[in-house]
Amino acid sequence: MDKNKMLEIQSLVRDCGQIMLNANRESILIDSKAGSANFVTEYDKKVQDALKKGLKQILPEAVFLGEEGIENTFSNKGMYLIVDPIDGTTNFIKDYHTSCISVGIINDGIKAAGVVYNPYLNEMYYAIKGEGAYLNDKRIHVSDEPLSNGIVLFGTSPYYEELNEKSFEMAFDYFKKALDIRRSGSAAIDLCSIAAGRAEVYFELRLSPWDYAAGSLIVEEAGGIVTTVEGGELCFDKTCSVLARNK
Amino acid sequence: MDKNKMLEIQSLVRDCGQIMLNANRESILIDSKAGSANFVTEYDKKVQDALKKGLKQILPEAVFLGEEGIENTFSNKGMYLIVDPIDGTTNFIKDYHTSCISVGIINDGIKAAGVVYNPYLNEMYYAIKGEGAYLNDKRIHVSDEPLSNGIVLFGTSPYYEELNEKSFEMAFDYFKKALDIRRSGSAAIDLCSIAAGRAEVYFELRLSPWDYAAGSLIVEEAGGIVTTVEGGELCFDKTCSVLARNK
Repeated sequence: MDKNKMLEIQSLVRDCGQIMLNANRESILIDSKAGSANFVTEYDKKVQDALKKGLKQILPEAVFLGEEGIENTFSNKGMYLIVDPIDGTTNFIKDYHTSCISVGIINDGIKAAGVVYNPYLNEMYYAIKGEGAYLNDKRIHVSDEPLSNGIVLFGTSPYYEELNEKSFEMAFDYFKKALDIRRSGSAAIDLCSIAAGRAEVYFELRLSPWDYAAGSLIVEEAGGIVTTVEGGELCFDKTCSVLARNK
Repeated sequence: MDKNKMLEIQSLVRDCGQIMLNANRESILIDSKAGSANFVTEYDKKVQDALKKGLKQILPEAVFLGEEGIENTFSNKGMYLIVDPIDGTTNFIKDYHTSCISVGIINDGIKAAGVVYNPYLNEMYYAIKGEGAYLNDKRIHVSDEPLSNGIVLFGTSPYYEELNEKSFEMAFDYFKKALDIRRSGSAAIDLCSIAAGRAEVYFELRLSPWDYAAGSLIVEEAGGIVTTVEGGELCFDKTCSVLARNK
Protein backbone atom coordinates (compact mmCIF):
# COMPACT_ATOMS: atom_id res chain seq x y z
CA MET A 1 0.00 0.00 0.00
CA ASP A 2 1.49 3.25 -1.22
CA LYS A 3 1.79 6.03 1.39
CA ASN A 4 0.53 8.73 -0.97
CA LYS A 5 -2.55 6.70 -1.74
CA MET A 6 -3.07 6.32 2.03
CA LEU A 7 -2.97 10.12 2.38
CA GLU A 8 -5.46 10.50 -0.47
CA ILE A 9 -7.82 8.01 1.18
CA GLN A 10 -7.58 9.87 4.49
CA SER A 11 -8.35 13.16 2.78
CA LEU A 12 -11.40 11.61 1.09
CA VAL A 13 -12.61 10.05 4.35
CA ARG A 14 -12.15 13.35 6.19
CA ASP A 15 -14.31 15.09 3.57
CA CYS A 16 -16.96 12.42 4.04
CA GLY A 17 -16.85 13.08 7.80
CA GLN A 18 -18.09 16.57 6.97
CA ILE A 19 -21.17 15.05 5.31
CA MET A 20 -21.93 13.40 8.68
CA LEU A 21 -21.28 16.55 10.72
CA ASN A 22 -23.32 18.74 8.39
CA ALA A 23 -26.31 16.37 8.21
CA ASN A 24 -29.65 18.14 8.44
CA ARG A 25 -30.82 16.61 11.70
CA GLU A 26 -34.39 17.89 11.42
CA SER A 27 -35.30 15.47 8.65
CA ILE A 28 -33.06 12.42 8.28
CA LEU A 29 -34.62 9.82 5.99
CA ILE A 30 -34.37 6.41 7.67
CA ASP A 31 -35.04 2.91 6.29
CA SER A 32 -35.02 -0.38 8.16
CA LYS A 33 -32.94 -3.38 7.10
CA ALA A 34 -33.08 -7.03 8.17
CA GLY A 35 -32.86 -7.56 11.93
CA SER A 36 -33.80 -5.46 14.93
CA ALA A 37 -32.39 -1.92 15.18
CA ASN A 38 -30.73 -2.22 11.76
CA PHE A 39 -31.16 1.08 10.01
CA VAL A 40 -29.82 2.90 6.98
CA THR A 41 -30.16 6.63 6.41
CA GLU A 42 -29.81 8.82 3.35
CA TYR A 43 -26.43 9.84 4.78
CA ASP A 44 -25.10 6.25 4.84
CA LYS A 45 -25.90 6.21 1.15
CA LYS A 46 -24.45 9.68 0.47
CA VAL A 47 -21.20 8.83 2.24
CA GLN A 48 -20.98 5.47 0.49
CA ASP A 49 -21.52 7.09 -2.92
CA ALA A 50 -18.82 9.69 -2.21
CA LEU A 51 -16.39 7.00 -1.01
CA LYS A 52 -17.10 4.76 -3.98
CA LYS A 53 -16.49 7.58 -6.44
CA GLY A 54 -13.37 8.85 -4.68
CA LEU A 55 -11.82 5.44 -4.07
CA LYS A 56 -12.36 4.52 -7.73
CA GLN A 57 -9.98 7.35 -8.63
CA ILE A 58 -7.39 6.48 -5.97
CA LEU A 59 -7.46 2.68 -6.43
CA PRO A 60 -9.10 1.97 -9.82
CA GLU A 61 -8.05 -1.69 -9.70
CA ALA A 62 -9.92 -2.39 -6.44
CA VAL A 63 -13.38 -3.95 -6.14
CA PHE A 64 -15.74 -1.94 -3.92
CA LEU A 65 -17.78 -3.75 -1.25
CA GLY A 66 -19.91 -1.33 0.79
CA GLU A 67 -22.40 -2.07 3.55
CA GLU A 68 -25.20 -0.26 1.77
CA GLY A 69 -25.98 -2.32 -1.31
CA ILE A 70 -23.56 -5.13 -2.05
CA GLU A 71 -22.92 -5.51 -5.76
CA ASN A 72 -19.85 -7.77 -5.64
CA THR A 73 -18.70 -10.83 -3.73
CA PHE A 74 -15.40 -11.15 -1.94
CA SER A 75 -12.66 -13.48 -3.11
CA ASN A 76 -9.09 -14.12 -2.01
CA LYS A 77 -7.78 -12.90 -5.35
CA GLY A 78 -7.37 -9.23 -6.15
CA MET A 79 -7.85 -6.03 -4.16
CA TYR A 80 -11.06 -5.33 -2.26
CA LEU A 81 -12.28 -2.19 -0.53
CA ILE A 82 -14.52 -3.22 2.37
CA VAL A 83 -16.35 -0.10 3.44
CA ASP A 84 -18.76 0.95 6.18
CA PRO A 85 -19.87 4.47 5.26
CA ILE A 86 -21.32 5.08 8.76
CA ASP A 87 -20.43 2.56 11.45
CA GLY A 88 -22.77 3.30 14.35
CA THR A 89 -25.83 4.24 12.29
CA THR A 90 -28.20 4.12 15.28
CA ASN A 91 -25.88 6.52 17.11
CA PHE A 92 -25.86 8.72 14.02
CA ILE A 93 -29.66 8.77 13.89
CA LYS A 94 -29.78 9.65 17.61
CA ASP A 95 -27.00 12.26 17.22
CA TYR A 96 -25.11 10.34 19.93
CA HIS A 97 -21.74 11.52 18.56
CA THR A 98 -20.17 8.05 18.38
CA SER A 99 -20.02 6.98 14.74
CA CYS A 100 -17.25 6.69 12.16
CA ILE A 101 -16.30 5.90 8.59
CA SER A 102 -14.38 2.66 8.03
CA VAL A 103 -12.38 1.69 4.92
CA GLY A 104 -10.47 -1.60 4.88
CA ILE A 105 -8.28 -2.74 2.02
CA ILE A 106 -7.77 -6.48 1.53
CA ASN A 107 -5.26 -7.63 -1.08
CA ASP A 108 -5.24 -11.29 -2.18
CA GLY A 109 -7.03 -12.18 1.06
CA ILE A 110 -4.54 -10.31 3.29
CA LYS A 111 -5.35 -7.11 5.18
CA ALA A 112 -3.27 -4.41 3.48
CA ALA A 113 -4.49 -1.14 5.02
CA GLY A 114 -7.25 0.38 7.11
CA VAL A 115 -8.66 3.84 7.85
CA VAL A 116 -11.23 4.65 10.55
CA TYR A 117 -12.32 8.26 11.05
CA ASN A 118 -14.43 9.57 13.93
CA PRO A 119 -15.43 13.07 12.82
CA TYR A 120 -16.91 14.07 16.21
CA LEU A 121 -13.51 13.81 17.91
CA ASN A 122 -11.59 14.47 14.67
CA GLU A 123 -9.72 11.21 15.22
CA MET A 124 -8.14 9.63 12.13
CA TYR A 125 -6.91 6.09 12.83
CA TYR A 126 -4.96 4.29 10.13
CA ALA A 127 -2.54 1.46 9.48
CA ILE A 128 -0.62 -0.01 6.58
CA LYS A 129 0.34 -3.67 6.96
CA GLY A 130 3.78 -3.94 8.57
CA GLU A 131 4.12 -0.21 9.20
CA GLY A 132 2.39 0.32 12.54
CA ALA A 133 -0.86 1.98 13.57
CA TYR A 134 -1.47 5.71 13.92
CA LEU A 135 -3.97 8.12 15.42
CA ASN A 136 -3.77 11.60 13.87
CA ASP A 137 -0.21 10.78 12.73
CA LYS A 138 0.95 9.68 16.20
CA ARG A 139 2.03 6.05 16.59
CA ILE A 140 -0.33 4.11 18.86
CA HIS A 141 0.09 0.90 20.82
CA VAL A 142 -2.26 -1.38 22.69
CA SER A 143 -2.25 -1.10 26.49
CA ASP A 144 -0.05 -3.37 28.59
CA GLU A 145 -2.52 -3.50 31.48
CA PRO A 146 -3.84 -6.87 32.68
CA LEU A 147 -7.57 -7.55 32.42
CA SER A 148 -7.93 -6.94 36.17
CA ASN A 149 -6.94 -3.31 35.54
CA GLY A 150 -8.72 -3.17 32.21
CA ILE A 151 -11.88 -1.91 30.53
CA VAL A 152 -13.90 -4.32 28.38
CA LEU A 153 -15.85 -3.00 25.40
CA PHE A 154 -18.67 -5.09 24.05
CA GLY A 155 -21.28 -5.23 21.37
CA THR A 156 -24.76 -6.65 21.94
CA SER A 157 -25.21 -8.03 18.40
CA PRO A 158 -28.54 -6.22 18.30
CA TYR A 159 -29.54 -7.57 14.87
CA TYR A 160 -29.21 -11.19 16.02
CA GLU A 161 -31.73 -11.87 18.78
CA GLU A 162 -30.38 -15.35 19.50
CA LEU A 163 -27.03 -13.83 20.58
CA ASN A 164 -28.30 -11.04 22.84
CA GLU A 165 -28.52 -12.96 26.12
CA LYS A 166 -25.12 -14.61 25.66
CA SER A 167 -23.63 -11.18 24.90
CA PHE A 168 -24.86 -9.82 28.24
CA GLU A 169 -23.68 -12.93 30.11
CA MET A 170 -20.21 -12.62 28.61
CA ALA A 171 -20.16 -8.90 29.38
CA PHE A 172 -21.02 -9.59 33.03
CA ASP A 173 -18.35 -12.33 33.25
CA TYR A 174 -15.77 -9.91 31.89
CA PHE A 175 -17.07 -7.16 34.20
CA LYS A 176 -16.29 -9.32 37.23
CA LYS A 177 -12.70 -9.79 36.08
CA ALA A 178 -12.06 -6.22 34.89
CA LEU A 179 -12.57 -2.67 36.18
CA ASP A 180 -15.72 -2.04 34.17
CA ILE A 181 -17.38 -2.41 30.77
CA ARG A 182 -18.34 0.08 28.06
CA ARG A 183 -20.78 -0.12 25.13
CA SER A 184 -20.30 2.55 22.48
CA GLY A 185 -22.45 1.25 19.64
CA SER A 186 -19.66 1.37 17.02
CA ALA A 187 -17.52 -1.73 16.45
CA ALA A 188 -14.90 0.15 14.44
CA ILE A 189 -14.49 2.80 17.16
CA ASP A 190 -14.22 0.04 19.79
CA LEU A 191 -11.47 -1.69 17.80
CA CYS A 192 -9.60 1.60 17.50
CA SER A 193 -9.99 2.17 21.26
CA ILE A 194 -8.20 -1.15 21.81
CA ALA A 195 -5.48 -0.09 19.34
CA ALA A 196 -5.00 3.23 21.15
CA GLY A 197 -4.69 1.53 24.55
CA ARG A 198 -7.92 3.12 25.83
CA ALA A 199 -9.40 -0.28 26.67
CA GLU A 200 -8.10 -3.82 26.95
CA VAL A 201 -10.69 -6.18 25.41
CA TYR A 202 -13.45 -5.84 22.84
CA PHE A 203 -15.85 -8.59 21.87
CA GLU A 204 -19.02 -8.98 19.81
CA LEU A 205 -20.63 -12.29 18.87
CA ARG A 206 -21.54 -11.47 15.30
CA LEU A 207 -20.33 -8.72 13.00
CA SER A 208 -20.04 -8.14 9.27
CA PRO A 209 -16.71 -7.72 7.43
CA TRP A 210 -17.23 -3.95 6.96
CA ASP A 211 -17.40 -3.57 10.75
CA TYR A 212 -13.88 -4.94 11.30
CA ALA A 213 -11.97 -4.97 7.97
CA ALA A 214 -10.13 -1.73 8.82
CA GLY A 215 -10.18 -1.81 12.64
CA SER A 216 -8.78 -5.32 12.96
CA LEU A 217 -5.61 -4.36 11.05
CA ILE A 218 -5.29 -1.19 13.13
CA VAL A 219 -5.40 -3.30 16.32
CA GLU A 220 -2.82 -5.77 14.97
CA GLU A 221 -0.49 -3.02 13.81
CA ALA A 222 -0.79 -1.47 17.30
CA GLY A 223 0.49 -4.76 18.76
CA GLY A 224 -2.84 -6.37 19.62
CA ILE A 225 -4.50 -9.63 18.67
CA VAL A 226 -7.78 -10.07 16.81
CA THR A 227 -9.52 -13.41 16.35
CA THR A 228 -13.01 -14.81 16.47
CA VAL A 229 -14.27 -15.50 20.00
CA GLU A 230 -13.32 -19.15 19.40
CA GLY A 231 -9.76 -18.14 18.46
CA GLY A 232 -10.03 -18.57 14.69
CA GLU A 233 -9.22 -16.15 11.89
CA LEU A 234 -11.67 -13.42 10.89
CA CYS A 235 -13.27 -13.95 7.51
CA PHE A 236 -14.22 -11.40 4.89
CA ASP A 237 -16.82 -13.34 2.95
CA LYS A 238 -19.37 -13.71 5.78
CA THR A 239 -20.25 -12.61 9.32
CA CYS A 240 -18.24 -13.84 12.31
CA SER A 241 -17.56 -13.09 15.99
CA VAL A 242 -14.71 -10.77 16.95
CA LEU A 243 -12.42 -10.72 19.99
CA ALA A 244 -9.73 -8.02 20.09
CA ARG A 245 -7.28 -7.62 22.95
CA ASN A 246 -3.90 -6.41 24.04
CA LYS A 247 -1.39 -9.21 24.68
CA MET B 1 -29.44 32.41 39.59
CA ASP B 2 -28.04 35.45 37.81
CA LYS B 3 -27.25 34.98 34.09
CA ASN B 4 -23.93 36.81 34.31
CA LYS B 5 -22.82 34.52 37.10
CA MET B 6 -23.84 31.55 34.93
CA LEU B 7 -21.58 32.87 32.15
CA GLU B 8 -18.72 33.30 34.62
CA ILE B 9 -19.17 29.73 35.86
CA GLN B 10 -19.15 28.41 32.28
CA SER B 11 -15.97 30.33 31.52
CA LEU B 12 -14.30 28.90 34.63
CA VAL B 13 -15.44 25.36 33.80
CA ARG B 14 -14.21 25.72 30.21
CA ASP B 15 -10.78 26.75 31.51
CA CYS B 16 -10.77 23.70 33.77
CA GLY B 17 -11.55 21.54 30.73
CA GLN B 18 -8.18 22.66 29.37
CA ILE B 19 -6.50 21.18 32.44
CA MET B 20 -8.03 17.83 31.46
CA LEU B 21 -7.10 18.12 27.78
CA ASN B 22 -3.54 19.21 28.56
CA ALA B 23 -2.90 16.49 31.16
CA ASN B 24 0.50 14.88 30.84
CA ARG B 25 -0.64 11.38 29.98
CA GLU B 26 2.77 9.79 30.41
CA SER B 27 2.69 10.09 34.19
CA ILE B 28 -0.71 10.58 35.80
CA LEU B 29 -0.59 10.08 39.56
CA ILE B 30 -3.46 7.80 40.59
CA ASP B 31 -4.80 6.91 44.05
CA SER B 32 -7.50 4.40 44.94
CA LYS B 33 -10.56 5.27 47.02
CA ALA B 34 -13.13 3.05 48.74
CA GLY B 35 -14.78 0.48 46.43
CA SER B 36 -13.68 -1.28 43.26
CA ALA B 37 -12.47 0.84 40.32
CA ASN B 38 -12.80 4.04 42.37
CA PHE B 39 -9.83 6.23 41.52
CA VAL B 40 -8.70 9.79 41.99
CA THR B 41 -5.90 11.41 40.00
CA GLU B 42 -3.79 14.50 40.55
CA TYR B 43 -5.97 16.14 37.85
CA ASP B 44 -9.22 15.55 39.77
CA LYS B 45 -7.56 17.47 42.60
CA LYS B 46 -6.15 20.20 40.32
CA VAL B 47 -9.53 20.77 38.67
CA GLN B 48 -11.31 20.75 42.04
CA ASP B 49 -8.84 23.30 43.46
CA ALA B 50 -9.30 25.57 40.43
CA LEU B 51 -13.10 25.28 40.65
CA LYS B 52 -13.14 25.91 44.38
CA LYS B 53 -11.02 29.03 44.02
CA GLY B 54 -12.92 30.37 41.01
CA LEU B 55 -16.39 29.62 42.38
CA LYS B 56 -15.49 31.33 45.67
CA GLN B 57 -15.09 34.57 43.68
CA ILE B 58 -18.27 34.13 41.65
CA LEU B 59 -20.52 32.91 44.49
CA PRO B 60 -18.78 33.82 47.77
CA GLU B 61 -21.90 33.00 49.80
CA ALA B 62 -22.05 29.37 48.60
CA VAL B 63 -20.69 26.34 50.48
CA PHE B 64 -18.40 24.13 48.35
CA LEU B 65 -18.94 20.36 48.34
CA GLY B 66 -16.53 18.60 45.99
CA GLU B 67 -16.09 14.89 45.33
CA GLU B 68 -12.41 14.99 46.23
CA GLY B 69 -12.25 15.71 49.94
CA ILE B 70 -15.54 16.65 51.54
CA GLU B 71 -15.10 19.37 54.16
CA ASN B 72 -18.74 20.37 54.63
CA THR B 73 -22.09 18.66 55.02
CA PHE B 74 -25.16 19.45 52.98
CA SER B 75 -28.24 21.07 54.47
CA ASN B 76 -31.49 22.38 53.05
CA LYS B 77 -30.62 25.90 54.16
CA GLY B 78 -28.31 28.12 52.14
CA MET B 79 -26.52 27.77 48.80
CA TYR B 80 -24.39 24.73 48.02
CA LEU B 81 -22.05 24.03 45.12
CA ILE B 82 -22.01 20.27 44.52
CA VAL B 83 -19.05 19.60 42.27
CA ASP B 84 -17.50 16.66 40.43
CA PRO B 85 -14.17 17.93 39.06
CA ILE B 86 -13.84 14.92 36.70
CA ASP B 87 -16.89 12.72 36.27
CA GLY B 88 -15.65 9.59 34.50
CA THR B 89 -12.26 9.36 36.22
CA THR B 90 -11.59 5.82 34.98
CA ASN B 91 -12.25 7.02 31.43
CA PHE B 92 -9.91 9.94 32.09
CA ILE B 93 -7.15 7.61 33.29
CA LYS B 94 -7.63 5.42 30.19
CA ASP B 95 -7.81 8.49 27.89
CA TYR B 96 -11.20 7.16 26.72
CA HIS B 97 -12.40 10.69 25.86
CA THR B 98 -15.68 10.45 27.78
CA SER B 99 -15.36 12.54 30.96
CA CYS B 100 -16.70 15.89 32.07
CA ILE B 101 -16.80 18.56 34.75
CA SER B 102 -20.06 18.90 36.70
CA VAL B 103 -21.14 21.86 38.85
CA GLY B 104 -24.58 21.82 40.48
CA ILE B 105 -26.00 24.69 42.54
CA ILE B 106 -28.60 23.89 45.18
CA ASN B 107 -30.33 26.76 46.97
CA ASP B 108 -32.35 26.07 50.14
CA GLY B 109 -32.64 22.45 49.05
CA ILE B 110 -33.86 23.29 45.51
CA LYS B 111 -31.82 22.77 42.33
CA ALA B 112 -31.04 26.29 41.10
CA ALA B 113 -28.55 25.75 38.25
CA GLY B 114 -26.25 23.19 36.66
CA VAL B 115 -23.28 23.15 34.30
CA VAL B 116 -21.77 20.03 32.69
CA TYR B 117 -18.83 20.43 30.30
CA ASN B 118 -17.38 17.67 28.10
CA PRO B 119 -14.09 19.12 26.84
CA TYR B 120 -13.46 16.32 24.31
CA LEU B 121 -16.53 17.28 22.27
CA ASN B 122 -16.46 20.91 23.48
CA GLU B 123 -20.04 20.48 24.69
CA MET B 124 -21.24 22.90 27.38
CA TYR B 125 -24.59 21.87 28.85
CA TYR B 126 -26.30 24.20 31.30
CA ALA B 127 -29.62 25.06 32.88
CA ILE B 128 -31.04 27.64 35.26
CA LYS B 129 -34.18 26.58 37.13
CA GLY B 130 -37.25 27.59 35.14
CA GLU B 131 -35.28 28.87 32.14
CA GLY B 132 -34.73 25.75 30.02
CA ALA B 133 -31.69 23.64 29.21
CA TYR B 134 -28.99 24.49 26.70
CA LEU B 135 -26.13 22.83 24.83
CA ASN B 136 -23.59 25.34 23.54
CA ASP B 137 -26.27 28.06 23.78
CA LYS B 138 -28.83 26.08 21.78
CA ARG B 139 -32.05 25.09 23.56
CA ILE B 140 -32.31 21.32 24.01
CA HIS B 141 -35.27 19.04 24.67
CA VAL B 142 -35.64 15.40 25.60
CA SER B 143 -36.63 13.02 22.84
CA ASP B 144 -40.27 12.16 22.20
CA GLU B 145 -39.49 8.60 21.07
CA PRO B 146 -41.10 5.66 22.87
CA LEU B 147 -38.83 3.17 24.64
CA SER B 148 -39.32 0.69 21.77
CA ASN B 149 -37.49 3.15 19.50
CA GLY B 150 -35.13 4.28 22.24
CA ILE B 151 -31.59 3.86 23.52
CA VAL B 152 -31.07 3.03 27.21
CA LEU B 153 -27.94 4.27 28.96
CA PHE B 154 -26.89 2.54 32.14
CA GLY B 155 -24.31 2.58 34.86
CA THR B 156 -22.95 -0.57 36.48
CA SER B 157 -22.46 0.94 39.97
CA PRO B 158 -18.90 -0.43 39.84
CA TYR B 159 -18.02 0.68 43.39
CA TYR B 160 -20.93 -1.29 44.90
CA GLU B 161 -20.43 -4.99 44.21
CA GLU B 162 -23.83 -5.94 45.62
CA LEU B 163 -25.55 -3.92 42.86
CA ASN B 164 -23.55 -5.15 39.85
CA GLU B 165 -25.62 -8.19 38.93
CA LYS B 166 -28.93 -6.36 39.31
CA SER B 167 -27.56 -3.57 37.09
CA PHE B 168 -26.83 -6.03 34.28
CA GLU B 169 -30.23 -7.74 34.71
CA MET B 170 -32.02 -4.40 34.45
CA ALA B 171 -29.90 -3.43 31.46
CA PHE B 172 -30.85 -6.64 29.68
CA ASP B 173 -34.54 -6.16 30.54
CA TYR B 174 -34.40 -2.66 29.07
CA PHE B 175 -32.43 -3.95 26.07
CA LYS B 176 -35.28 -6.30 25.18
CA LYS B 177 -37.76 -3.41 25.20
CA ALA B 178 -35.56 -0.83 23.44
CA LEU B 179 -33.33 -0.61 20.36
CA ASP B 180 -30.08 -1.07 22.28
CA ILE B 181 -28.12 -0.02 25.36
CA ARG B 182 -25.02 2.12 25.87
CA ARG B 183 -22.55 2.42 28.77
CA SER B 184 -20.36 5.51 28.66
CA GLY B 185 -18.80 5.51 32.13
CA SER B 186 -19.91 9.07 32.98
CA ALA B 187 -23.22 9.62 34.78
CA ALA B 188 -23.24 13.35 34.11
CA ILE B 189 -22.68 12.86 30.37
CA ASP B 190 -25.43 10.23 30.31
CA LEU B 191 -27.87 12.62 31.98
CA CYS B 192 -26.99 15.30 29.44
CA SER B 193 -27.49 12.78 26.60
CA ILE B 194 -31.05 12.27 27.87
CA ALA B 195 -31.52 16.05 28.04
CA ALA B 196 -30.29 16.46 24.46
CA GLY B 197 -32.63 13.75 23.16
CA ARG B 198 -29.74 11.46 22.21
CA ALA B 199 -31.13 8.63 24.33
CA GLU B 200 -34.40 7.90 26.08
CA VAL B 201 -33.61 6.34 29.49
CA TYR B 202 -30.66 6.39 31.89
CA PHE B 203 -30.44 4.44 35.11
CA GLU B 204 -27.83 3.62 37.73
CA LEU B 205 -28.55 1.92 41.04
CA ARG B 206 -26.29 4.01 43.23
CA LEU B 207 -24.67 7.37 42.61
CA SER B 208 -23.38 10.24 44.71
CA PRO B 209 -24.89 13.76 44.67
CA TRP B 210 -21.96 15.22 42.67
CA ASP B 211 -22.75 12.75 39.84
CA TYR B 212 -26.28 14.10 39.31
CA ALA B 213 -26.61 17.51 41.03
CA ALA B 214 -26.10 19.39 37.75
CA GLY B 215 -27.27 16.80 35.20
CA SER B 216 -30.61 16.12 36.87
CA LEU B 217 -31.65 19.78 36.60
CA ILE B 218 -30.48 19.86 32.96
CA VAL B 219 -32.74 16.85 32.21
CA GLU B 220 -35.72 18.44 33.99
CA GLU B 221 -35.24 21.77 32.24
CA ALA B 222 -35.11 19.87 28.92
CA GLY B 223 -38.54 18.45 29.69
CA GLY B 224 -37.50 15.11 31.19
CA ILE B 225 -38.14 13.40 34.51
CA VAL B 226 -35.53 12.36 37.07
CA THR B 227 -36.32 10.25 40.13
CA THR B 228 -34.80 7.40 42.04
CA VAL B 229 -35.42 3.99 40.45
CA GLU B 230 -38.25 3.56 42.98
CA GLY B 231 -39.81 6.86 41.88
CA GLY B 232 -38.75 9.01 44.84
CA GLU B 233 -36.92 12.32 44.91
CA LEU B 234 -33.14 12.48 44.53
CA CYS B 235 -31.32 13.47 47.69
CA PHE B 236 -28.23 15.61 48.09
CA ASP B 237 -27.04 14.47 51.50
CA LYS B 238 -26.34 10.82 50.58
CA THR B 239 -26.10 8.35 47.68
CA CYS B 240 -29.21 7.16 45.82
CA SER B 241 -30.33 5.47 42.62
CA VAL B 242 -31.15 7.56 39.55
CA LEU B 243 -33.65 7.04 36.73
CA ALA B 244 -33.84 9.74 34.06
CA ARG B 245 -36.18 9.59 31.11
CA ASN B 246 -38.14 11.49 28.53
CA LYS B 247 -41.90 11.62 29.08
